[in-house]
Amino acid sequence: MAGNDRFVNQIADINGDYTKWYTDVCLKAELCDYGPVKGTMIFRPYGYAIWELIQAEADKLFKAHGVSNAYFPMLIPQSFLMREAEHVEGFAPEVATVTHVGDAELSEKLVLRPTSETIIGSMYSKWISSYRDLPLKLNQWANVVRWEKTTRPFLRTSEFLWQEGHTAFATPEEASADAFEMMGVYKQIANEVLCLPVLCGQKSEKEKFAGAVATYGMEAMMKDGKSLQSGTTHYLGDNFARAFDVKFLDKDGTHKYAYQASWGISTRLIGAIIMAHGDERGLCLPPRVAPVQAVVIPIGAAKNPAAGERAAALKAELAACGMRVTLDERDCSPGFKFNHWELRGVPVRVEIGARDIDAGVMTVCRRDTGEKFTMPLEDAGTRISALLTEIANNMFKKASDFTAAHIVRADNLADMEKALDGGNFCDSYWCGDRECEDKIKQLYSASSRVMHEDQSDVSKHKCVCCGKKAKRRIYFARAY
Amino acid sequence: MAGNDRFVNQIADINGDYTKWYTDVCLKAELCDYGPVKGTMIFRPYGYAIWELIQAEADKLFKAHGVSNAYFPMLIPQSFLMREAEHVEGFAPEVATVTHVGDAELSEKLVLRPTSETIIGSMYSKWISSYRDLPLKLNQWANVVRWEKTTRPFLRTSEFLWQEGHTAFATPEEASADAFEMMGVYKQIANEVLCLPVLCGQKSEKEKFAGAVATYGMEAMMKDGKSLQSGTTHYLGDNFARAFDVKFLDKDGTHKYAYQASWGISTRLIGAIIMAHGDERGLCLPPRVAPVQAVVIPIGAAKNPAAGERAAALKAELAACGMRVTLDERDCSPGFKFNHWELRGVPVRVEIGARDIDAGVMTVCRRDTGEKFTMPLEDAGTRISALLTEIANNMFKKASDFTAAHIVRADNLADMEKALDGGNFCDSYWCGDRECEDKIKQLYSASSRVMHEDQSDVSKHKCVCCGKKAKRRIYFARAY
Repeated sequence: MAGNDRFVNQIADINGDYTKWYTDVCLKAELCDYGPVKGTMIFRPYGYAIWELIQAEADKLFKAHGVSNAYFPMLIPQSFLMREAEHVEGFAPEVATVTHVGDAELSEKLVLRPTSETIIGSMYSKWISSYRDLPLKLNQWANVVRWEKTTRPFLRTSEFLWQEGHTAFATPEEASADAFEMMGVYKQIANEVLCLPVLCGQKSEKEKFAGAVATYGMEAMMKDGKSLQSGTTHYLGDNFARAFDVKFLDKDGTHKYAYQASWGISTRLIGAIIMAHGDERGLCLPPRVAPVQAVVIPIGAAKNPAAGERAAALKAELAACGMRVTLDERDCSPGFKFNHWELRGVPVRVEIGARDIDAGVMTVCRRDTGEKFTMPLEDAGTRISALLTEIANNMFKKASDFTAAHIVRADNLADMEKALDGGNFCDSYWCGDRECEDKIKQLYSASSRVMHEDQSDVSKHKCVCCGKKAKRRIYFARAY
Repeated sequence: MAGNDRFVNQIADINGDYTKWYTDVCLKAELCDYGPVKGTMIFRPYGYAIWELIQAEADKLFKAHGVSNAYFPMLIPQSFLMREAEHVEGFAPEVATVTHVGDAELSEKLVLRPTSETIIGSMYSKWISSYRDLPLKLNQWANVVRWEKTTRPFLRTSEFLWQEGHTAFATPEEASADAFEMMGVYKQIANEVLCLPVLCGQKSEKEKFAGAVATYGMEAMMKDGKSLQSGTTHYLGDNFARAFDVKFLDKDGTHKYAYQASWGISTRLIGAIIMAHGDERGLCLPPRVAPVQAVVIPIGAAKNPAAGERAAALKAELAACGMRVTLDERDCSPGFKFNHWELRGVPVRVEIGARDIDAGVMTVCRRDTGEKFTMPLEDAGTRISALLTEIANNMFKKASDFTAAHIVRADNLADMEKALDGGNFCDSYWCGDRECEDKIKQLYSASSRVMHEDQSDVSKHKCVCCGKKAKRRIYFARAY
């Protein structure tokens, strides 16, 4: 963050040009920048710090679920991709290939991992030989490469950062349960850490992961009513075990294929935070992933040194309470500083001026509501800490209310079009046929997102598209 | 770590076949495995956990030095490498190149970063425009690819994990000081975290980084008397600033090139730990980076449940004191368990049997010395915690004594040969000419490592190789 006045915080109107607003926030809040190669991006310190905080929270939860971290090579023999028919079909077009080292051509072409089921499968076949080697639950934090035609910072870039969990079990039930349970962990991260309400459920055949038996998705509603897929878990059955010969000797003395699951969340979550919580003033960060949770700004410190001293003491007090806090002593106007930190989404701003000190108070401004009020300086740590919790709760409630208000029941195509154009998700019934998904995609650029959690009485309803007997209740939405 | 008896801990004799001993420790302690592509490796959970602990310690120190983390793309336009003449010459032969995505050929060839001076330089030219943007101190934790002909786990693999710090300053003095200071940080990590004595100093022209003005190296002595380069820092002058047009408007109103430094440590440090501290029983881990600092083993728990209960209580007590501790309740013999944890280098083993409980003691075994003794169970947390500190101090002292005992003054080639063959570093004087370095390399497969910290009275001495007047006091050694 440059310590100077040159920077002007003008961002596009969120209600006017949402796309430009998003790009403006990404660049002007210094979350990221474009890389020299088309479709690549740089995580600048402020954006990367958000990712580090997400990582720390997620890593703790994974480890509590008995998962260990490991690291597998990024370069995968091209032939590995070919072994699982659906997998290669799904990923081949977007895979980057290494053919040369220096001037020498490689004897076997290598691909940059788009995901690591194949290389991890090849190692699991070596490590797993007995039922005693199961379950095996590994995760890696890594970069992956998927070459995309249309790219946007955080949402879709040719390289991104993520974690990928890969688990193996003796039975299909355990592997399937793992995919389901890890979706629960992702939901917990979304709700509690990112203040993000999400819809979780199984994906359709069309939308599932290439090579999976079943994919579960976590969908978050952005402020334009579009959906952002924010995490997926996959039950892989024995598809990769068969492709890579992952077999074990079971207790009953017979050799069996292992059953696997995989699951991932990525730096896309930063895009979700930006678009679900941001507003006309810029970013609005959930307190648990805010690199700066509170900024303390002395007012009139040039004329009144006491304001600067009291602000510094307050900063130290908040830091001692474990908060991530910054003191902004720069030589520029309060208004400039307010804009600077609002654009960057800092949850709490504290101003300390002569009048505050005389009254024994601090002036506090909440980023989530914009409310400005005074609080006693006494026990400031406890007060601000409680305020951060309140802000988190309010952010989750606001986003939940927004999401609930923008889910519309649509029982026919006319209603669906209206709902989608109004910036809503459609809560619909569906016959289960791919043709209807394709038609909806073609007509309205919307896709099925996840199954509704309530699948009771589905057969009493008709498909939103073809009118045949429904087999599923499912959400349709436009999506990133 | 598989919970069964199949595993036999046999490793090669460290005093017989050191190379095989190293590989055995890597594989049998489950630190790593070979990847499917030649020259690649997998970090298994136990090895990766060591890296995570090194990362956490280093990251804290970097941040305390005002460095922020960021992340830059892995794919660099091939043309970027060409812009700095020495840089491309040094790295081109070992660079992997991406030419295709799916079936389509890329319009510009991309290389997998061997290091990121070029791509970061290109971004610095965009971000730095005024003296107020300086200093800029960024670091990234990343994977890099350097294709090597001869590879060994942790020491030399085609992909490895590291951190690379890239800093920019207004003056050469500041940039040069940064390279020097960060070497001090690396030394602190080596000494305090890894219990590793190191020799730090400037490298010769021949051994410096491709594109640097000056390189500083940190060299650690392995138990075979060979040196392992364990970290480097580079003063880059304005070489990359000129190549990438990193200019700023200074206070005096003129445009100037920025001066840069870069610095890195890698997963090679795990190799250093293995080879500097390991012994005939396997790995011996410095307590601060040991994934398991203490293992508690109940003795005779099958007959005497009290031993199991007391062991579990002790495990909980040590964990509550912040130690990383494991309870080994597996159904296998104590001897098997002792081997298992000794091979894995766990600093402290605690045994609890009926006799221990009756006497109110625990039986403690130190991995560093092999000593076995009893300690009161009372205040076990404080006692084991203090023991871990003592173990760390002793490991550093032992390695320091070993290093000191194997640095031999060599004033002529005959002495040098004898010293090197005896598994020593040579403390020698040198004329400064590349020819002498080349000759020593050719004759004895040894290279200059770093300058000696004491360069006084150098001119009174003669070059170890050619006998001409010396210009430098420098270490020569065989190296990994």
